[in-house]
Amino acid sequence: MDSSLIPPDELKFLLRWLEAGRADDDWDTIDAILDLSASIASDAFLPHYKESDRTEPTLTPTGVHILPAIGAALREYANAGFFAAGFDEQLGGLGLSAVVTYAILAQFSAANIATAAYPMLTAANARLIATFGSAAQIEQFALPQIAGHWFGTMCLSEPQAGSSLGDILTRATAEGKDTLGERFRLTGNKMWISGGDQDVSDNIIHLVLAKIPQADGSLPPGTKGISLFIVPKVLPDGQRNDIAIAGLNHKMGYRGTSNCLLNFGETIGATGWLIGEPGKGIAQMFQMMNEARIAVGVGAAALGFRGHRISLCYAQERSQGRLAGGHTGLPVAIFEHPDIKWMLLAQKAYTEGALGLCLYCASLVDRPQETDAGALLSLLTPVAKTWSAEYCLKANDLAIQIHGGYGYTRDFDVEQLYRDNRLNAIHEGTTGIQAADLLGRKILRDGPFAFDVATTRVMACVAEASKNSRLAGRTEALTDAWRSVVDTVNVLRSVERQTALDNATMFLRAFGHTIVAWLWIEQILAAERAESEGRVSARFVHGKERACRYFFDCELPKVRVWLAVVSAMTDVASGASIDEFC
Amino acid sequence: MDSSLIPPDELKFLLRWLEAGRADDDWDTIDAILDLSASIASDAFLPHYKESDRTEPTLTPTGVHILPAIGAALREYANAGFFAAGFDEQLGGLGLSAVVTYAILAQFSAANIATAAYPMLTAANARLIATFGSAAQIEQFALPQIAGHWFGTMCLSEPQAGSSLGDILTRATAEGKDTLGERFRLTGNKMWISGGDQDVSDNIIHLVLAKIPQADGSLPPGTKGISLFIVPKVLPDGQRNDIAIAGLNHKMGYRGTSNCLLNFGETIGATGWLIGEPGKGIAQMFQMMNEARIAVGVGAAALGFRGHRISLCYAQERSQGRLAGGHTGLPVAIFEHPDIKWMLLAQKAYTEGALGLCLYCASLVDRPQETDAGALLSLLTPVAKTWSAEYCLKANDLAIQIHGGYGYTRDFDVEQLYRDNRLNAIHEGTTGIQAADLLGRKILRDGPFAFDVATTRVMACVAEASKNSRLAGRTEALTDAWRSVVDTVNVLRSVERQTALDNATMFLRAFGHTIVAWLWIEQILAAERAESEGRVSARFVHGKERACRYFFDCELPKVRVWLAVVSAMTDVASGASIDEFC
Repeated sequence: MDSSLIPPDELKFLLRWLEAGRADDDWDTIDAILDLSASIASDAFLPHYKESDRTEPTLTPTGVHILPAIGAALREYANAGFFAAGFDEQLGGLGLSAVVTYAILAQFSAANIATAAYPMLTAANARLIATFGSAAQIEQFALPQIAGHWFGTMCLSEPQAGSSLGDILTRATAEGKDTLGERFRLTGNKMWISGGDQDVSDNIIHLVLAKIPQADGSLPPGTKGISLFIVPKVLPDGQRNDIAIAGLNHKMGYRGTSNCLLNFGETIGATGWLIGEPGKGIAQMFQMMNEARIAVGVGAAALGFRGHRISLCYAQERSQGRLAGGHTGLPVAIFEHPDIKWMLLAQKAYTEGALGLCLYCASLVDRPQETDAGALLSLLTPVAKTWSAEYCLKANDLAIQIHGGYGYTRDFDVEQLYRDNRLNAIHEGTTGIQAADLLGRKILRDGPFAFDVATTRVMACVAEASKNSRLAGRTEALTDAWRSVVDTVNVLRSVERQTALDNATMFLRAFGHTIVAWLWIEQILAAERAESEGRVSARFVHGKERACRYFFDCELPKVRVWLAVVSAMTDVASGASIDEFC
Repeated sequence: MDSSLIPPDELKFLLRWLEAGRADDDWDTIDAILDLSASIASDAFLPHYKESDRTEPTLTPTGVHILPAIGAALREYANAGFFAAGFDEQLGGLGLSAVVTYAILAQFSAANIATAAYPMLTAANARLIATFGSAAQIEQFALPQIAGHWFGTMCLSEPQAGSSLGDILTRATAEGKDTLGERFRLTGNKMWISGGDQDVSDNIIHLVLAKIPQADGSLPPGTKGISLFIVPKVLPDGQRNDIAIAGLNHKMGYRGTSNCLLNFGETIGATGWLIGEPGKGIAQMFQMMNEARIAVGVGAAALGFRGHRISLCYAQERSQGRLAGGHTGLPVAIFEHPDIKWMLLAQKAYTEGALGLCLYCASLVDRPQETDAGALLSLLTPVAKTWSAEYCLKANDLAIQIHGGYGYTRDFDVEQLYRDNRLNAIHEGTTGIQAADLLGRKILRDGPFAFDVATTRVMACVAEASKNSRLAGRTEALTDAWRSVVDTVNVLRSVERQTALDNATMFLRAFGHTIVAWLWIEQILAAERAESEGRVSARFVHGKERACRYFFDCELPKVRVWLAVVSAMTDVASGASIDEFC
């Protein structure tokens, strides 16, 4: 495998931390799957990384054409069974856990995130149908996706509504019933549809949010009136559905993933089948959205990881300058310059921290029967998505910086990684949306349960870490930070909702840093156990230890700064009037 | 003028703050020049902003071709006399101060930084020749640049040497003497040459760092052996000089500025004339480099400004969602969402703070006879360059975020502004290089004088601000922050040089934030004076006041976090060994 991908040892370490209970036998299979994914990622995904950036999807009268190498890579991916990775065996799946599935996704995303986006969406689409669809719908629409023959999309946003789904205007008119369920005609425009059209899968299954008109013909207001429909590009009878590609978005990065404006029902109305009950669309779609949000975090971490690997390699190969005070002798490898070490260490802390966080969330997905796990997952999903997107973009920024001028040229992948990663703070809900979700829904609306679960786990971690003298100052720092978060939440619970939400993004930042600090301690504890069991080397543990120290020394103290602002319930921003800007 | 450019009122306010002593009569002329620059920036620079990104320079056997619109814009710029803006009248210049000259540059950079880069380099090149060259050299090489007929470059880096100029290998062999001075033949490769070739000026004057071989034919080691040469593309006799364009760099942004690898002397050696004495090359070049560094800061601020203006406009025009708790009624303009206000306010604090800082430095350039001003300029130049580059990139990041998915598409300029601005932390010395310059040279090596000048000015500001009850908490916060900086510097002076420099970048970050906080207070004091004199509106002052409050509440407290790390002289990064990363 290419040395710029995620070291399989890192993934194996994380999985053994998060799935500690697994039998020894399992690991051989899982390790083999990880190695296979690294190999296909390296041989089929990575080689067209630059080419798919240069050769954007094009729109012609016959539809959207994407780089053929993407199709070839995804056929190889399908042949190896990866579309089926996370599905039960009765659905033709490999029955892998969510943690393992996301670890695989991380590797493919590191190699080529735009190509990996197609199967990520496809699996999430198929899983939604498998969860909420009828047996006939699963048979017809989910199984071909699990086999990797058809791809899937999610159609939520509309040009006028953006993230405000209650305002969507796509209309679904009942047309009767058939073996696939209640059939509707859909009309409306859907924006930002990743994989909305392409020419490498035999069919595309769109999951479309739409509103069924009320008796008077008007659309029900708000999100409660939203239903979810399966709208295939090609209908079961082989006819093309009434879906027009109204435009392609030309993006800063992520260019291999086609991104479309789709017009449903320009002529006779697009045929779609209702999933489950009417009015449940948002709740159903949240399953896919939450899966996609963790995937965004994983993808951001993966891009960060690859930038880290590339810049680490560059720092060893490139010689320039001498250490401070020196003017003679040969130039040193730039790795020797403390500033370069800072940038490498920050990248390590961000990317390994993010990957640990996202896979931790995945491990909660694997415990659907545990109330605690479900609540914690719901609390941490916006953090996994946002923290990873924000800080792994920063990691990519540092990877460019290590390369100097070269990093700014398109000769090196770090430039593209940065452009690709810039999307991750936007799609599947911007940082601001995630902050409102975290504070407004998960903490203030849903009551203290999930937050208390987090407190319990953080404190359990502190208790275990307290036995470890090497972690001395850090357990106190984590305890203090968490206490500040708790105090802030208590303050916010006591005030008006709008006031509490005014500074939600800054709260998310503080909360995210504290969560990542906690999981860094968990990683250290896991690494020490792994070392004592002979599974990782001493230098592996030292590297983790150093990244963790960096995070506690240089990053965690910012939590106090942010929370001071949030607790003070400042109106410095919310009180601004437009004429102060003009 | 286009409303996305820098409001002339902002520039007029800053200039009146920084040139308070000017006679009233002057302002009419200056205001007219600012208005003219806004108008040409709007009409000639802005219209090809996107096109020059899409249509990169190309290299053919006859040389580098750039977008013709760039040439047309620069002819208009030349016709209006802007190349000559900052030069004495006896050189054909307009005799404008550095502050006014940089304010003009800011406006052109906001409109199209890649086009503005050509005259920026040309003026700095001509100024170097005017300062250090002979009368004949000035006549021959500087005047045509001041007239805007010829353009200039600076040739420092080499592929193997990067920022480590002591390691350059370009060799200059003496060939005799003529009316233009001592003539040499140069051979060597120069990398990252902005404007290194193009087809819109009649000639290109390269200022080239090279080494004159010693008696045994070897090159003198280190930077002391470096001399500076004028190497024109076209020789005075009309012959082409021996300069080959070995390649064009393909960049993430800033694409309108051609960027070349130049091979000097592939055949007979390139003809060049020595400027001044041998061995003075670095000292001479630092004049141009320092000018360019402030220009980089100005450019970064300008890109940040334009992103701020565009996103402010978008936030008023785009309706989406409702305030927290609301589900009914029409969607509100996204400006109403507190998270959007946060992002607009941070942009305002970063970009107006950066522009204030850079123009403050320019005002020091205008006081060459004052020792204090020179020392302070030397101290603040790395800050102006770096702080502006880092935080105005962040501003551009927020401008994208306000646009949501649209901001990630190439349909909006914010995407390009962000890519363009990413260069500014790299060229003319990376952030790490600037940090070493600030701490290693300007503070530790050059002794306490410059730093003491800064202390005196900060304290004078505090004294004045203390009379203003509205600034109450902030004067204490600034005093505290400055005291922490002083304490940290004292600690660093007492330890070994390498130890002190290990965390130089984090020191720069803290120092930069403190300097910007100080200048924000200066801006507030100036704005209040301006309001009392009827020069600005109350809302202008309120806007400044809010951005200043944001900076003190949310940004300045980070100084303590950074300085704690620096003062502790942590080895968390410097102590890292390569195997901890592998």
